[in-house]
Amino acid sequence: MYGLIGKMRSVPGKREELLALVFTATSKLPGCLSYIVARDPVDTTALWITEVWTDAASHKASLALPEVQAAITKARPLIVGFEFQVETEPVGGIGLP
Amino acid sequence: MYGLIGKMRSVPGKREELLALVFTATSKLPGCLSYIVARDPVDTTALWITEVWTDAASHKASLALPEVQAAITKARPLIVGFEFQVETEPVGGIGLP
Repeated sequence: MYGLIGKMRSVPGKREELLALVFTATSKLPGCLSYIVARDPVDTTALWITEVWTDAASHKASLALPEVQAAITKARPLIVGFEFQVETEPVGGIGLP
Repeated sequence: MYGLIGKMRSVPGKREELLALVFTATSKLPGCLSYIVARDPVDTTALWITEVWTDAASHKASLALPEVQAAITKARPLIVGFEFQVETEPVGGIGLP
């Protein structure tokens, strides 16, 4: 499995709009085992996204899907940057198929 | 919902042993919606744990359960420290009930 943990920062006041876009893009992605979006409780512009994919290739392929490309295009003006991003090798646990 | 993202560092050479202990302790915890354990692909002593609970109280209560206390006691000598830990407010996504 392939995992990502990242912190995305929105334009001030645009976090909820960004959150909605992230959800529309991730409803049924092939190879996606877990994709959880969370607000940062302290920083009102920050979202944490934790992902588990069957492999790195399925994650990479998802970025080329038309619905994901469309969401990225809409989201780009709302994003200030990515403050933190790590790759992981998920082993298992609760919440995986 | 209440979330945690953390990086735990093991004594060198003890990561797999620590990983096994983390799993035994988290099989059926009340209020636990997601609990995914991952290896760091670069740092051979590091584990990433991403958790989603119904609320902070259920997470806190889990730490007092006898099986969790037993695992913590066994794990303590294998842990060097926690390098990174953030609380989150999960909104939803794939991999939650």
